[in-house]
Amino acid sequence: MEYSFSKKVSSLQPSAIREILKFTSMPGVISFAAGNPAPEAFPEKEVAQISANILATRPIDALQYSITEGYIPLRETVAQYMKTKHNVGKDFDKIIITAGAQQVMDLTTKALCNEGDTVICESPSFIGSLNAFRSYGVHLCGVPVESDGMNIEKLEQALKTEKNVRFIYTIPNFQNPSGVTMSLEKRKSVYELAKKYGVMILEDNPYGEIRFAGENVPCIKSLDTEGIVIYAGSFSKVLSPGMRVGYAIAPEAVIAKLTVCKQVSDVHTTIFTQIIADEFMRNYDFEAHLERIRAIYKHKAQLMMKLMDEKFGDKVKYQPIEGGLFLWCTLPDGVDMPAFCKKAVENKVAVVPGNAFLMDEAESCQNFRTNFSTPTDEQLIKGMDILGELVKSL
Amino acid sequence: MEYSFSKKVSSLQPSAIREILKFTSMPGVISFAAGNPAPEAFPEKEVAQISANILATRPIDALQYSITEGYIPLRETVAQYMKTKHNVGKDFDKIIITAGAQQVMDLTTKALCNEGDTVICESPSFIGSLNAFRSYGVHLCGVPVESDGMNIEKLEQALKTEKNVRFIYTIPNFQNPSGVTMSLEKRKSVYELAKKYGVMILEDNPYGEIRFAGENVPCIKSLDTEGIVIYAGSFSKVLSPGMRVGYAIAPEAVIAKLTVCKQVSDVHTTIFTQIIADEFMRNYDFEAHLERIRAIYKHKAQLMMKLMDEKFGDKVKYQPIEGGLFLWCTLPDGVDMPAFCKKAVENKVAVVPGNAFLMDEAESCQNFRTNFSTPTDEQLIKGMDILGELVKSL
Repeated sequence: MEYSFSKKVSSLQPSAIREILKFTSMPGVISFAAGNPAPEAFPEKEVAQISANILATRPIDALQYSITEGYIPLRETVAQYMKTKHNVGKDFDKIIITAGAQQVMDLTTKALCNEGDTVICESPSFIGSLNAFRSYGVHLCGVPVESDGMNIEKLEQALKTEKNVRFIYTIPNFQNPSGVTMSLEKRKSVYELAKKYGVMILEDNPYGEIRFAGENVPCIKSLDTEGIVIYAGSFSKVLSPGMRVGYAIAPEAVIAKLTVCKQVSDVHTTIFTQIIADEFMRNYDFEAHLERIRAIYKHKAQLMMKLMDEKFGDKVKYQPIEGGLFLWCTLPDGVDMPAFCKKAVENKVAVVPGNAFLMDEAESCQNFRTNFSTPTDEQLIKGMDILGELVKSL
Repeated sequence: MEYSFSKKVSSLQPSAIREILKFTSMPGVISFAAGNPAPEAFPEKEVAQISANILATRPIDALQYSITEGYIPLRETVAQYMKTKHNVGKDFDKIIITAGAQQVMDLTTKALCNEGDTVICESPSFIGSLNAFRSYGVHLCGVPVESDGMNIEKLEQALKTEKNVRFIYTIPNFQNPSGVTMSLEKRKSVYELAKKYGVMILEDNPYGEIRFAGENVPCIKSLDTEGIVIYAGSFSKVLSPGMRVGYAIAPEAVIAKLTVCKQVSDVHTTIFTQIIADEFMRNYDFEAHLERIRAIYKHKAQLMMKLMDEKFGDKVKYQPIEGGLFLWCTLPDGVDMPAFCKKAVENKVAVVPGNAFLMDEAESCQNFRTNFSTPTDEQLIKGMDILGELVKSL
């Protein structure tokens, strides 16, 4: 039988990263391509204690159906934390627990966008989000990311000229893949422009707590007096991605619509892992845990940057970072980037070709992305040796 | 700010059941409205043992990112079980693990349907699935359910006259809400008609293993020589709904498209609960567990049917059942069904008004649905006393 699929998903392909990850399962390949937390960053003993306690004292709570909005104590814990620590959440806001932050992208697009509507994204941006938007048949308009965030003139140009813009998508902290953190000034400008043009902002902040240098910059959501920002948060990088627990904080009417969309999508997020996340935040020292994982990532990031300085010299540049999981590297003009990435994987080091993060993957691109959180120090050193040799031969 | 939502979801409302469940949290209300497994049906000790063992021996497996298709051992376990026990799964089929069977409805509709396409459903049918279909802007065409399943003449009529029919949705075993099991003859007819008219079948089988009387009827998927059936299975009724683990078995090209849709929706299903489901099936006596829960539901179903015989007399009829979780009751002509359900809840017994399960909720309807799996025996007796008094007064 010939199967035919809906227009909106027929061109949707497995992500390029996913395809590259296939190589990484080959023996001996060092992967700088993933975005997994370091295995040593998981609080495995604490999770084991919490799980045992839940299943010993109230197993039915962890096994029975629950409500779509999410486990009430976890919603309270997260709302309290985000309010106290980040000034996120006004009286008009509510919270929904989702299956990771990825589901916030999915539900937001479904709730806000008709096919053919426009979503403005940073270019480059996270492929998982771009594909979520694409899967609802929306048009993506990319605005270049500079070293302090989106180009504001080009953002306004896009808001003026694009039709049916529904929201602006941004990862303001340690942006994936560019590593850029948006300045406070630009955050204010993005907010004012969204207000002026009557569009919403989807603020995706999976890496905000993984800042290991520099000063924290306020979330765009903390500026949200008008109720135009949907904030997406996640436990994936600060606790465990396999648990699939994330959340959205947004005005009540938006959360209500995300809730009916989630109800028909998966009924509710796995309740066992929601309770684990809640008890971890309530009963353990969450701040000390964050300090511990920041130290892990600081060490790995600094190691990779130092090796890049040594091995890449002036030939390959990277955007210095103060947090997150990724480094964004630029090959010299005239170098064939896809050929470089192919050669790297043939030499047993996987990196992600930068065009995977563009609105149009066919565009030419001189960048590749590396990740330092997944490999061991030994793998970092060995992999950077190999990449260094390749760069030398350019 | 006035929020505007996409056309496809703007009319989507919280389900009527959900609204009724609000009453059930009021003190003293006996709920026959839910569809939760009986608390005593959960293998809580086994889940506690398995969890402790996973977190002691391989915590990273349970906490790290995993692959979209699902945990490989669980896919093997389920594929093997469904093949051996139900003859489901041909060489051309693959399996994907989902966040409950609800996600199969969501992903299938997204992958197969453009807005305005038609999905043929049994009428009445499960509101969670109907709302999933509605959330993609599809047109629902209802085919009446008779005591042995869909009316085949009306199904063919619909296939002939409706435009862009993409699939036929059926719950062949202990259908929700009608309790009806489709005869083998009708299963064959539905399959042949789908083949003849070139449409797919979405076979939803959450209750198949909860048969406590009569003979098993083969799944439609077991007849699938052409690769036109998508089979949706679930651990919700046989292990735990809070774990959110379900699956689809379908031709490889369909599973590939469901996989890219799932990747942008939630990346993967919670891996911890996938491993728990797998180890429960592998290392414990799953068949003995099923026998134990069948006995629980048999007792409760027989109790409720006996009480209906006693209390409802000939005034209110119900469809006798051999499995599942629900009884479908018919009020006499002329009785105002919504008023009856309202009066019931005022008297502290919640049932679900039957029109919630129709393609058009505004249609008139003489039915209501009761559930016997959630209440205790005491609540069943007390609640049926109250309903009996109401029926007497009709």
